[in-house]
Amino acid sequence: MTGYVRNLAERARAAALAIAGLEPAQRAALLGSMADAVAEGRDDILAANTADMERARAAGTTGAMLDRLQLDAGRVDAIVAAIREVAALPDPVGQVTRSEVHPNGLLIEKVRIPLGLIAMIYEARPNVTADAAALCLRAGNAVLLRGGSEARDSNIAIAACLHRALRAHGLPAEAVALVEDTAREHVLELLQLSDLIDLAIPRGGERLIRFVAENARVPVIKHYKGVCHLYVDRAADPALALQLAIDGKLSRPGVCNALETLLVHAGIADAWLPDALSQLKARGAEIRGCDRTRALFPDAAPATEEDYAAEFLSPILAVRVVDSIDEAIAHIQRHGSDHTEVIASADPAAADRFVREIRSSAVMVNASSRFNDGGSLGLGAEIGISTTRLHAYGPMGLESLTIERYVVRGEGQVRHPESIVDAS
Amino acid sequence: MTGYVRNLAERARAAALAIAGLEPAQRAALLGSMADAVAEGRDDILAANTADMERARAAGTTGAMLDRLQLDAGRVDAIVAAIREVAALPDPVGQVTRSEVHPNGLLIEKVRIPLGLIAMIYEARPNVTADAAALCLRAGNAVLLRGGSEARDSNIAIAACLHRALRAHGLPAEAVALVEDTAREHVLELLQLSDLIDLAIPRGGERLIRFVAENARVPVIKHYKGVCHLYVDRAADPALALQLAIDGKLSRPGVCNALETLLVHAGIADAWLPDALSQLKARGAEIRGCDRTRALFPDAAPATEEDYAAEFLSPILAVRVVDSIDEAIAHIQRHGSDHTEVIASADPAAADRFVREIRSSAVMVNASSRFNDGGSLGLGAEIGISTTRLHAYGPMGLESLTIERYVVRGEGQVRHPESIVDAS
Repeated sequence: MTGYVRNLAERARAAALAIAGLEPAQRAALLGSMADAVAEGRDDILAANTADMERARAAGTTGAMLDRLQLDAGRVDAIVAAIREVAALPDPVGQVTRSEVHPNGLLIEKVRIPLGLIAMIYEARPNVTADAAALCLRAGNAVLLRGGSEARDSNIAIAACLHRALRAHGLPAEAVALVEDTAREHVLELLQLSDLIDLAIPRGGERLIRFVAENARVPVIKHYKGVCHLYVDRAADPALALQLAIDGKLSRPGVCNALETLLVHAGIADAWLPDALSQLKARGAEIRGCDRTRALFPDAAPATEEDYAAEFLSPILAVRVVDSIDEAIAHIQRHGSDHTEVIASADPAAADRFVREIRSSAVMVNASSRFNDGGSLGLGAEIGISTTRLHAYGPMGLESLTIERYVVRGEGQVRHPESIVDAS
Repeated sequence: MTGYVRNLAERARAAALAIAGLEPAQRAALLGSMADAVAEGRDDILAANTADMERARAAGTTGAMLDRLQLDAGRVDAIVAAIREVAALPDPVGQVTRSEVHPNGLLIEKVRIPLGLIAMIYEARPNVTADAAALCLRAGNAVLLRGGSEARDSNIAIAACLHRALRAHGLPAEAVALVEDTAREHVLELLQLSDLIDLAIPRGGERLIRFVAENARVPVIKHYKGVCHLYVDRAADPALALQLAIDGKLSRPGVCNALETLLVHAGIADAWLPDALSQLKARGAEIRGCDRTRALFPDAAPATEEDYAAEFLSPILAVRVVDSIDEAIAHIQRHGSDHTEVIASADPAAADRFVREIRSSAVMVNASSRFNDGGSLGLGAEIGISTTRLHAYGPMGLESLTIERYVVRGEGQVRHPESIVDAS
């Protein structure tokens, strides 16, 4: 432990008080200036990104990784637009979520305050640097950012823009603290700072999230893989179920709310499965099925146990025929990742049972799994999708970056008035 | 790692699904039976407690600890009454906390579900065994209980009653899982079970809570010490401020929402402090003050830096004269434990500033710190008072043992309708 990250985090934590103390309109104006500063800094950001890209290419980095790392004028514009969107969201800080006067005359309220200092640990995408800073500051927090080493120069350039905006508002630049030295020992140090960091959010691949979860002394909300299921009930509308399968699997296979596994009730499998799988295959899906699936659709490859636990991030679809809704629920409980599950059914009793027994962050009845994100669910923007069943579960918007606490106002009320005799 | 606790936790987690699946009225009825079973088992519980007490006395256990351990007929009645109170609380599971229809026709709701499996780690008080089980099950969870070794026989006897009630309702007894073997290695094993335990709540002294926080891989909500402050502003009503000081410090010095430190604005200190400290002393308080305090009240002993960070759990009161509200806030930020802080002031601007800048779980304006508990704040019952600024902050009632997740109902809506062409 070098103290390098502790020093950064101490200054960020002190700066958090300044951000928390702003009025809502001041926080919105700060974000507007952050967006302006990124727009004005575009040339510097692109130059830094070119250096990152050259280093990555020289290190033999592959196509998808390079694509995540790369910025261009359009992508910088998108970063600017995203900050402006967050600036326009309602301020969560100071919201009163409960207010009641008790018989003893006390006015008891629950009021949102910022969490404090939030650490983001992420990989190659430089846009996360700006997104996370915008969301954390909008909710009154400071942020400690640790991006991937590949994006180091881009992240430094983006952070420099955000620092200019903070200083222009008379605020400490340390409210957006970037861990510039990307040595892994500093991540380990960061994860131990439970006296300074209120929450750590890892965003990236399974390996990163596991590393954070296994080494953290600070509270962590995981944004883990999505092994999402569509259960086609015996009472499903066939065309509707097919729509959900196509949209869920194929509209964007590389994201966490895409479908991975199709569970089909035996009572509808004969009539529905052969045509549905043909249509999915015709649109590019690769089918891996159980024996009963393969009997109905011989083009399917055999599915392994691993396939049923996999987040393919590709057009592969695992398929299983089940004898009952119980079997479907048990399959999901065993193989799911608590992200998103869908039932297609025209039977309200089956839908209610599925909703009641499935404990994932989102359950969809006759709607696509792809709707599980902050934008579609009305949060405006999200810092990730939590699969941790604590504090926030599902898409995390600005409210998830705050906590409710009690404010009590009285006129001198005490618990034991009898002990106060002669006290005035 | 022996696998002993993993085995218990696996069975408890499976049992959690049965508890979560009950209707609200069934859960209330289950708790009624749990209360009945404890009442019926009173003789067994008292016999087991006698064995615990004899072992504790033989080991040379001291008075306060023995008192916490001891049960008698009245205390068992209090346990029964507490379970009945929890049974009567509104069921949090299934509560819809948000409901809106989006322009695309989707009905989007946030609905409370249980957390799953909650681990309680506590010390000598056997009543926690019943209290924690009642609260966790009322909110649809299973519970894994690890009480102190001193109370082992009492806890086994209480758990046996709870198990009888579960079985009488056709439910798995493992929903209340007691770690009967109290060897410390089993606590360590418990704290690693992040695939099974959704939340661990330590309750007890600072040493226990530190041990849990430092060794846990599972999410932990700390219920830490209360170093609570009363700031007497320049604009305070003198009689009101004295009431708050007497009630806060002396009505029950051994609890976490008792006052430890009095901060007094210099502008009121001359007029208020000598008489106030005399009255506190006359009622049994021991005063430790800064130099300015001692100049006004020579009976005070000198306060050390350690005194300002201490949870005395006794009638000792640390006192400091400050030159401004800023100095009071800075003192609290430095020495406080995020539990409860009070301002006595007739100046709304001072009160608002104190509320805005203090980030503790409860801030009281002209009301006693002693009101920071679940009963006084309208929660009905509490499993503890969280000083962790995540998930729950302040008293944790039934709602804190649940999480909100999304339920979305549609008629076949998809994200990318254009990709569905020909799909029916």
